[in-house]
Amino acid sequence: MLFFVGLGLFDELDISVRGLEVVRQADLVLAEFYTSRLMGSSAKRLSQLYGRPVTLLSRSDVEESPGWLSEARDKDVAFLVGGDPMISTTHLDLRLRAEEMGIPTRVIHSSTIASAVPGLTGLQNYRFGRSASIPFPYKARGKRIVPETPYMVFSENRRQNLHTLLYLDIQEDHFMTVNQGIECLLEVAVAGGETELGQALGVGVARAGSDGCMVRAGTLSQLVEIDFGPPLHILVMPGGLHFMEARALQVLAKASPELVRRFEI
Amino acid sequence: MLFFVGLGLFDELDISVRGLEVVRQADLVLAEFYTSRLMGSSAKRLSQLYGRPVTLLSRSDVEESPGWLSEARDKDVAFLVGGDPMISTTHLDLRLRAEEMGIPTRVIHSSTIASAVPGLTGLQNYRFGRSASIPFPYKARGKRIVPETPYMVFSENRRQNLHTLLYLDIQEDHFMTVNQGIECLLEVAVAGGETELGQALGVGVARAGSDGCMVRAGTLSQLVEIDFGPPLHILVMPGGLHFMEARALQVLAKASPELVRRFEI
Repeated sequence: MLFFVGLGLFDELDISVRGLEVVRQADLVLAEFYTSRLMGSSAKRLSQLYGRPVTLLSRSDVEESPGWLSEARDKDVAFLVGGDPMISTTHLDLRLRAEEMGIPTRVIHSSTIASAVPGLTGLQNYRFGRSASIPFPYKARGKRIVPETPYMVFSENRRQNLHTLLYLDIQEDHFMTVNQGIECLLEVAVAGGETELGQALGVGVARAGSDGCMVRAGTLSQLVEIDFGPPLHILVMPGGLHFMEARALQVLAKASPELVRRFEI
Repeated sequence: MLFFVGLGLFDELDISVRGLEVVRQADLVLAEFYTSRLMGSSAKRLSQLYGRPVTLLSRSDVEESPGWLSEARDKDVAFLVGGDPMISTTHLDLRLRAEEMGIPTRVIHSSTIASAVPGLTGLQNYRFGRSASIPFPYKARGKRIVPETPYMVFSENRRQNLHTLLYLDIQEDHFMTVNQGIECLLEVAVAGGETELGQALGVGVARAGSDGCMVRAGTLSQLVEIDFGPPLHILVMPGGLHFMEARALQVLAKASPELVRRFEI
């Protein structure tokens, strides 16, 4: 049996009690931390709390030569990932390969940023439209490319008065900040002729799930000046605010009454 | 301090290790199960596993006279809810009241249906548009009313080729089934002139997070004939399928190759 065990939002305590039982009873415990990071922990600390050796897999162990998969034919293998498992296509692909090999699989769910953000910000979950990721700008043929997709997704949601959750890129040990994410959005907006996006409302969230979680609302021009501290960061672009959401952004995200009033519907 | 502790998807083992620590150290442990249900458990079983008395609150204890809130001024109060906390406006309102009374609050996140569904079905989370709830039809002035909002939300997502997660109504001990949810959608569609919705693709999910979880894909006309068993149920209306999603629905949701081929993009 192959168990995909979600480790949740932040550190080794965010696993579920069910997940912990699976890990403690498994014959083999593997983890991968390149599709998502458990910022507050490490394979070593996981091993200590769980009382089991945890083997960290590389990208190629997971994507190219998952020879360990056949171990799950006659052993219980726990495969640990940050957040809720199966959000990454990589995990889905592994699960389908296993099922196609006749290996039964089971998903042990956990907390994840997509459901934590409505709770942390007070923005209602049913008012979120499609989410998107902001990738780091890159160079192609000597030209700087800032991908337009996140801005397009945000624009479409805004048209429908929905909130947008924007994941911020992770490349090796580079974590995109709220500030960098905003700069990407502004750059694409200006290139497309929207020069006033700096006056739009944004909410930055850092270190969701930890005691040091930080949530701040402001115009993009205000937020871009704020230091959100260590990763992970995430950016929310709210649609128009319902009354309770406006109240929540004042209490939970230090927004001024004047600011939220401008965006209430 | 007031802790909002998420109990996760299904039973008393879905709480996080962090959540369990908070419950065990709290001076007072309260729970409410009317905004969401922990189908696989009860306040009594929670008490047994957690080794603490758990007091079940009524709707009026929570919404009208939460006198217990002031206990959190100088005690640690753990407030337990199914799923991830703060998804319900009721919890947000409580949290804001507490903060406005000067009581610090902390959210302990957990697994929730919105993040579990992409994992269970293989439908990619970034391809979900806005979600909606299908309420039970009701009578007003002797006329049967089937609310149109879920169909409208689905239609708008379909136009953008996005998936739609449809929560199914709970009223007291009545849990809407996948079948009833589909019937509501079909009724609204036909009234609006769309007579072919029965041929659209749907995915029914029952008892997410449990060992007895069931996931089936089919046309709505096929799904409406399937018995999904005990609650909770949820319905997904996929947009066009990417290759990996089509493969996943065959492996994880017993869809036939012919069926998914019709919806691949």
